[in-house]
Amino acid sequence: MGRKPTKLKIIPLGGLNEIGKNMTAIEYKDEIVVIDSGLSFPEDEMLGIDIVIPDISYLIKNKEKIKGFVITHGHEDHIGALPYVLKKINVPVYGTRLTLGLVELKLKEHKIANVHLQRVNHGESIKLGIFSIEFIRSCHSIPDACAIAIHTPMGIVFHTGDFKIDYTPIDDQFIDLHKIAELGQKGVLVMLADSTNAERRGSTMSEKNVGATFENIFRNTDKRIIVATFSSNVHRVQQIMEAAQKYNRKVVVSGRSMVNVVGVAVDLGILTIPDNLIIDIDEMDQYNDGQIVIITTGSQGEPMAALSRMASSDHKKLEIRQGDLVVFSSSPIPGNEKGISRVINQLFEKGADVIYESLAEVHVSGHACQEELKLMHRLVKPKFFIPVHGEYRHLRKHANLAEDLGMNREDIFIVNNGTIVEFTKDNAKVGGTVPAGRVLVDGLGVGDVGNIVLRDRKHLAEDGLMVVVVTISKETGKIAAGPDIISRGFVYVRESEVLMVEAKEVVKNALLICESQNAREWSTLKSSIRDGLKDFLYEKTKRRPMILPVIMEV
Amino acid sequence: MGRKPTKLKIIPLGGLNEIGKNMTAIEYKDEIVVIDSGLSFPEDEMLGIDIVIPDISYLIKNKEKIKGFVITHGHEDHIGALPYVLKKINVPVYGTRLTLGLVELKLKEHKIANVHLQRVNHGESIKLGIFSIEFIRSCHSIPDACAIAIHTPMGIVFHTGDFKIDYTPIDDQFIDLHKIAELGQKGVLVMLADSTNAERRGSTMSEKNVGATFENIFRNTDKRIIVATFSSNVHRVQQIMEAAQKYNRKVVVSGRSMVNVVGVAVDLGILTIPDNLIIDIDEMDQYNDGQIVIITTGSQGEPMAALSRMASSDHKKLEIRQGDLVVFSSSPIPGNEKGISRVINQLFEKGADVIYESLAEVHVSGHACQEELKLMHRLVKPKFFIPVHGEYRHLRKHANLAEDLGMNREDIFIVNNGTIVEFTKDNAKVGGTVPAGRVLVDGLGVGDVGNIVLRDRKHLAEDGLMVVVVTISKETGKIAAGPDIISRGFVYVRESEVLMVEAKEVVKNALLICESQNAREWSTLKSSIRDGLKDFLYEKTKRRPMILPVIMEV
Repeated sequence: MGRKPTKLKIIPLGGLNEIGKNMTAIEYKDEIVVIDSGLSFPEDEMLGIDIVIPDISYLIKNKEKIKGFVITHGHEDHIGALPYVLKKINVPVYGTRLTLGLVELKLKEHKIANVHLQRVNHGESIKLGIFSIEFIRSCHSIPDACAIAIHTPMGIVFHTGDFKIDYTPIDDQFIDLHKIAELGQKGVLVMLADSTNAERRGSTMSEKNVGATFENIFRNTDKRIIVATFSSNVHRVQQIMEAAQKYNRKVVVSGRSMVNVVGVAVDLGILTIPDNLIIDIDEMDQYNDGQIVIITTGSQGEPMAALSRMASSDHKKLEIRQGDLVVFSSSPIPGNEKGISRVINQLFEKGADVIYESLAEVHVSGHACQEELKLMHRLVKPKFFIPVHGEYRHLRKHANLAEDLGMNREDIFIVNNGTIVEFTKDNAKVGGTVPAGRVLVDGLGVGDVGNIVLRDRKHLAEDGLMVVVVTISKETGKIAAGPDIISRGFVYVRESEVLMVEAKEVVKNALLICESQNAREWSTLKSSIRDGLKDFLYEKTKRRPMILPVIMEV
Repeated sequence: MGRKPTKLKIIPLGGLNEIGKNMTAIEYKDEIVVIDSGLSFPEDEMLGIDIVIPDISYLIKNKEKIKGFVITHGHEDHIGALPYVLKKINVPVYGTRLTLGLVELKLKEHKIANVHLQRVNHGESIKLGIFSIEFIRSCHSIPDACAIAIHTPMGIVFHTGDFKIDYTPIDDQFIDLHKIAELGQKGVLVMLADSTNAERRGSTMSEKNVGATFENIFRNTDKRIIVATFSSNVHRVQQIMEAAQKYNRKVVVSGRSMVNVVGVAVDLGILTIPDNLIIDIDEMDQYNDGQIVIITTGSQGEPMAALSRMASSDHKKLEIRQGDLVVFSSSPIPGNEKGISRVINQLFEKGADVIYESLAEVHVSGHACQEELKLMHRLVKPKFFIPVHGEYRHLRKHANLAEDLGMNREDIFIVNNGTIVEFTKDNAKVGGTVPAGRVLVDGLGVGDVGNIVLRDRKHLAEDGLMVVVVTISKETGKIAAGPDIISRGFVYVRESEVLMVEAKEVVKNALLICESQNAREWSTLKSSIRDGLKDFLYEKTKRRPMILPVIMEV
C-alpha cells in the first residue's frame, strides 16, 4: 500500500454564495494560512443580530497549524471578524499599510492587545512555513488593496482579492499587471477571483470620473455642500478635498468612522490634506455656505450615522438647512434601499437638494466588470478556477465567463463555504467538507443566538405573545390563584378587554377538563391551555401569538 | 357679517409622501366623492402587519355626504382598501370594465355582497350630486385605466390617475389627449398628477418594446420558458401569449392571481387567447421543453408566490429544471430587492438561466417620466397643481418640473395626507387638516395594532423576552413559590443555565430588599425585579430583553 500523496487544500470558510464574511484557508500538510477574516451584516430575518462572522471551528481545531492571517484589504467584509477570531487564535496578521492601520483601529475598539501585526509592502514576499506569499498591488475602492500569490509545493495559488482595473488610479499606483502576467507565464495552479460584478457587462469606470463630477458640482453652486461616502474610500475623500480646495471651500469631517479613518490615512501618508483646509465643526459659522463642504458618513442611510442624524434633526451640531446640496457618493448596498430613500425624503423635506447615483456620476464601483475579469483570466491563465466573493448567481456568471474564455467546465469549481478543494500539480477535485456557516453576534454573545432563538424572535415579532400564569394547589389540584393573562405585541389590551376575559374562561375550561380527567401532569395542563387558547385566538383574530403557560404550585 | 363663500375642498387621504394607499376626497357643500381606495404594503418596521389602509375616520364622520367612489384603475394601491372601506361606508363604486372586474374579484374573496358597482365606459360622464364626472381614457400598466375630470361649481378638477403616454399601446386605445387638450382649453382649476417617475428624465418606453424582446427571446431558445410578471398587466400577458403562439409554444398559467385575472380579462374581452394555446399544467409532459411557456406570479420574490415555490421545490406540480429559462418581466418594487435576489440565486442553483431587467428590455414602467409629465402639464394648463402619488422626493421633483414650465411656486401645493386644500374659482389655499394616516391590518384586526403593539414587537424581535413568575403569600408577604424564569428569543437556555440560575438569585435579592423595606405594592415589587434583572442581563450579555414580572398571591 502506497502512501497517499499529500494534497494542497483550499477551503473557503466564507464569501461563497453570499456577499461578505470572506475567509479562505490554504492548507498543506500541517500548515495553514488564512486569507482574510471578514464579517457580514445580518439578513432581515436575523432579528436583533449585530453582525455575522464565519464559523471557524475548523480553524480552532487546527489551531496549531495556522501560520497567520494574510489580509487583502481593509474593508469590513475582509477584516471585520478579526477581533473575534484573534481571541480564539492568536497568530500574526499580515497586510499592507492602510489595511493594518484599520485592523489596529478595530483591535483598539475591541480592547485587544498583544496581536502581532506585520506590515508588508506591495511587491514584497513573506515566508509562512512552506508557503511563500507575495503581496501584489491591486486596485479597489480602498487604498493599498492586494492580490495574493501563494507559492506552494503544488503550484501557485492566486487570489485576486476584491479588485477593479483602474487605468488612472488616484494615487498613480497602477495594479501590478506586469507581476500578474509574469505569474501567468510561470503557470498558476488555481485562481480565486472576485465575482461581485460578474453580471455587469463592460468595464468599471475610473475613480477619476467621480473627481470630475465633483468639480462640476462644486463649480456650479454657492450652496453648502454635504457629501456622504464610505470612510474607507480614502481616494474619494481625497478627491472631495481637492475639489474643495480648488473652489475655495473649507472642509468639515463628520461622523466617527470618517474622523477615525481620515486620521489613520493622514498618519500613514495616504491622504494628503492641504494646510488650513480642514476646519472644526464649531468654526463653520465663520464662513458662508458657499465656503463649506461637509464630508460625512451615512451614505447607506444607516439610522445612527451622521447624515441620517442631520436629516432627522438628531445631530448635536449640524442640521440640514433650506438650500443645502447633499451628494450621496455611493450606491445602495442591496437591502439598504429603503433606509437611503427615507433619508433622501427627509433631506428634501428640509429643503435640501439631493444628488445621487442615478442622477449623476458621483460614484463608481470598486469591483471588476466582465471585461476586466476577462483581462484577469487571460493574464493569469490558471489551470483551475474557483469563483469567489458572490452570491450563487455571481459565481455562476463568473464561471460562465471563464468557460467562454475557453476553460473546461470540469476545471471550474463553484463550491460552498466549507467545501475542501484538493489539488495536486495537475489535478483538482472536491474532497469533502469541514464545518462552515454563520456565527451570529448579538451584543456580547458570539454564537449563543441560533435558529431556535431566531425562530422565537420571528414568532414574537409577527404575532406577539400571551403569557398565562396559574397557581395550583398541591393538595387539591385546583386553581389557587389566577389564571392571569398578560399580552405584549398582540393587541391593545384596553381595546380588547372582552377578548382577555374570554381568554381567561378558555383557560379555566381547559383546566377544568384536565381536572375532570384527573390529568395533573404539568405538561398536559400546559398543552391544554396552549391548544385551547391557540384555537380561540386564531378564530377571533386570525393571529397566532406565542402562548407561554406558566404553572406554579403552592 | 357676510356668509363665507362655499369652497371646494380637496383632501388627499392617502398617496402623499408615500407610494401606495391612494385616496382623495373631493368635497363641496354637503357632497363628497372619493377617488380611489388603495392599500399599501407594510414597511419593514411594521412587524407582523399584512396590509396598510388609509385612516378613513373623516369619511366615516361624513358618511351621509359621500356619493360614491370613483376608481381610476384596478391596481391594489387604488382598490385594495375597498373591502375594508365599504364595510363602513356602503356607497356605489364607479369604474371601467377591468377595474370593476378586479373589484368584484376582491369583494368576492372578502365575502362582501350588496355593493352597487356601476360600470362606466371611457369617454362617459356620470353625475354624482353636484359633481359631473368624466372618465377619460388613459394608459398605464393595466388595461382600462382612467384619468378623471370632476366638473365642480368652482371649476374642473383633473386627476391624471397613474399614467404614462404610450404612443403604441397594445390595445390600440391611445390615451385621450384630445379630450385632455379640450379640458385644458376650457380651463382646469387644479390638476392632481402622478409623481412616481418624476425623478426620471426622458420618456417611458412603449409596452410594445417588451413584446419585441419576448419575440427575440422566444425565437432563440428551445428551452422551457418561464415568465414571471404582474397578473394585472394584462397587455404584458397578451404579448407573452402572442409570442408563444408565434413560436409554437403552449402556455401554462400559474399562480392563483394569474389564473383569476386571466379569467376575468378573458370574460371581459380584454385578453384574447387563441384557441388551444392554453394547456393544463398536467398536460405539460405531452410536450417538449421547447413547446412550453409558463406565465406565473412571483415577479417580486414573494415567498408564497408560484415562482418562489418552484424555485424552492415547494410547488406541487412544477419544479425548475436544469436548462429552464426564467424571465423576470418586472422591476423590483423598493424593499423587494433581497427577496427577488434570493429567488434568482435559487433558480441559478437549480440550473436555470435567468433574465431580468438589467440584462434585457423585459419590462417597462407604467408611469410617466419627465417628458411625459411636461406634455400633460402643457395640455392641461391648470391654475393650481397638487403633485400626488409619491414620496416627498417625487412630489418635490414634480413641483420643480411644474415651476420650470412656468407655474408660480405659490400655485403648487405639496401637501400631506389629511391636508385640506380649499379652492374658489380663482384662489387656493391650505385650509386645515382632517385625521389621516395609516391603519394597520393584521389578520382580522383592522386598526387594533398600533404603535405600542409595534414597539413591543420590535423589542421582542430584537432581544427576546424573559418572564419572571413568583407567587407570594398573602399572610407572610414572603415567596410561596418561584421565582420561575422563562425566556424566549433571548439565549439558548441550555447553554445559559448558569445565567438563568444567577438571574433567579437577582430576582430573589430584589424581593428580599423589598421585604426588608416593607414594600408590598405589586408595582414596587415588579419594578424592583425589572430593574435588577435589566442591569444584570445587560452587564452579562449587552442585550435588553423585555422583562415581564408576574406576581401571584395565594
